[in-house]
Amino acid sequence: MTLSTPTPLAIGIDFGATSIKSALVRGGEILRHGRLIDPQNATAAETMAAIEGVIRELCSDLPSLVPVGIGLPGLVDSTNGIVHGLSNVIGWEEVPVRQLLQDNLGVPVILENDANAMAYGEWRHGAARDARHVICITLGTGVGGALILDGKLFRGAQLAAGEIGHASIDYQGKPGPYGSTGGLEEYVGNGQITERAMDAYRHAGVIPPATPCTPEHLAYAAQAGCPVAKELWEAIGTEIGAAIASAVWLLNPDAIVIGGGIARAGELVFDPIRRSVSNRTAPVIHESLRIVPATLGNDAGAIGCAALALEAIG
Amino acid sequence: MTLSTPTPLAIGIDFGATSIKSALVRGGEILRHGRLIDPQNATAAETMAAIEGVIRELCSDLPSLVPVGIGLPGLVDSTNGIVHGLSNVIGWEEVPVRQLLQDNLGVPVILENDANAMAYGEWRHGAARDARHVICITLGTGVGGALILDGKLFRGAQLAAGEIGHASIDYQGKPGPYGSTGGLEEYVGNGQITERAMDAYRHAGVIPPATPCTPEHLAYAAQAGCPVAKELWEAIGTEIGAAIASAVWLLNPDAIVIGGGIARAGELVFDPIRRSVSNRTAPVIHESLRIVPATLGNDAGAIGCAALALEAIG
Repeated sequence: MTLSTPTPLAIGIDFGATSIKSALVRGGEILRHGRLIDPQNATAAETMAAIEGVIRELCSDLPSLVPVGIGLPGLVDSTNGIVHGLSNVIGWEEVPVRQLLQDNLGVPVILENDANAMAYGEWRHGAARDARHVICITLGTGVGGALILDGKLFRGAQLAAGEIGHASIDYQGKPGPYGSTGGLEEYVGNGQITERAMDAYRHAGVIPPATPCTPEHLAYAAQAGCPVAKELWEAIGTEIGAAIASAVWLLNPDAIVIGGGIARAGELVFDPIRRSVSNRTAPVIHESLRIVPATLGNDAGAIGCAALALEAIG
Repeated sequence: MTLSTPTPLAIGIDFGATSIKSALVRGGEILRHGRLIDPQNATAAETMAAIEGVIRELCSDLPSLVPVGIGLPGLVDSTNGIVHGLSNVIGWEEVPVRQLLQDNLGVPVILENDANAMAYGEWRHGAARDARHVICITLGTGVGGALILDGKLFRGAQLAAGEIGHASIDYQGKPGPYGSTGGLEEYVGNGQITERAMDAYRHAGVIPPATPCTPEHLAYAAQAGCPVAKELWEAIGTEIGAAIASAVWLLNPDAIVIGGGIARAGELVFDPIRRSVSNRTAPVIHESLRIVPATLGNDAGAIGCAALALEAIG
């Protein structure tokens, strides 16, 4: 007689700068969400207490507390479980989050950078389930990224790997942070797309709309047949594809997963991305390469964190 | 009482298109070289017999044959030990090199792509001995590369990873093979440097020399104080540094090892490379990054192959 082990439970916490989401997760499925926590206008200690409360609430009808994974936006030492600092949330300098929570809860806790957590979620339970080597790209205000190599998160020497948004598509191009030049983010970040759309409409002699033309508006315009919008999506996809092509020459992955706001433009942007990559790389490299949209949406972070927590305890 | 295990021996074979070098290696040191084999004007079967002969000669005064590693320039299936085809050597389509040699010699044989073998040599016994994540770049007629990630050769999904020479520094730049655009190789391959040097001298009103200005000549001219040559090395270093910066944002490695002819220009090229990388990346990424010349020179391939053979047998 064989007894099947029940799929273990874990809690995933997606620490966003304006809202902390949490969920009880089993096998990549969210069983229930915790209440939202706002980390602004609160001290780190207050927010930590609120997180602890949510964890206890999510486990209130379970026989015991379950492992916890937390993805945070900022400089996170996943090895030692310490937050060095968060982007856009003050007061989180050198907080030993793992130790504090483990001491109070008595369950394993892991920390991870939020881009890595999302990538891990998409790899374990989302768009890149069967792949061994994956580049994940998140297109939003900034362009973030993370790598799964040889079936593991690849973090690099200072845990800073995956920053495809700062990899350059033009070494004499637009300046970006840290002296980066021609980084992809300087062309296809949300703000840059809005700026380019306004310019393109002005240039085409179309009166620009009174409100800024966001990527969402631009997708709507292209779907409605506007040639200015279509042309701009073609350019955006070509640029994203150029950055991917260079990464693909270097890493020869099985899959590229693209998430974030712009990915919702669908084939408008995926079609030129795929063409750009195929046009710029050898057949051996692109023929079996899948370039696919992320599938877990806003839940990728929480699902990835839960999976990382379970992986850590073996 | 403890008995120390003697450092094991292996043979490394560096299969070049015009000359096959071989060596008996112990702990990264070459004990003796085998005679050279010319793979041109010979069938694959003849060359295989010659390789087998050299292996037996190198082991003639040993109690038994030792493991063999072979690095080859071309499409090599290291998993199955098959050569799909070689660059610039005809008649090597689908040759099961590993099986053929193992059957005849009765010792373990491994195959590897030559760029990977050199990188492995530099990592195990050369310039990048203490590093965990390394990008190796070879600057020659072409620009090749290989990756050591998490202390292992990283080969990618189709065993084609590491091609930093085709990664783009300008997505609208010079066309290269396979539709690649603005690949580093199109700017700093030996032929391109020669062309640029001739142009620069012409542009500067200096009568170009009758013989083509090779990178070696250009290094000599710069060391002699020629401002045209110095400026060109500055540009070349900046471009190489730009390609490295993008790879470094993506992979956050500990070390970059640079070998091949151009690397012999020393600080003329290393100084602008290091400046370009530092100027284009965040301090957390470049402060502990070492950018160093390869140290094993022409022996890197043979030493790397011998090390890979020993690694394969555990």
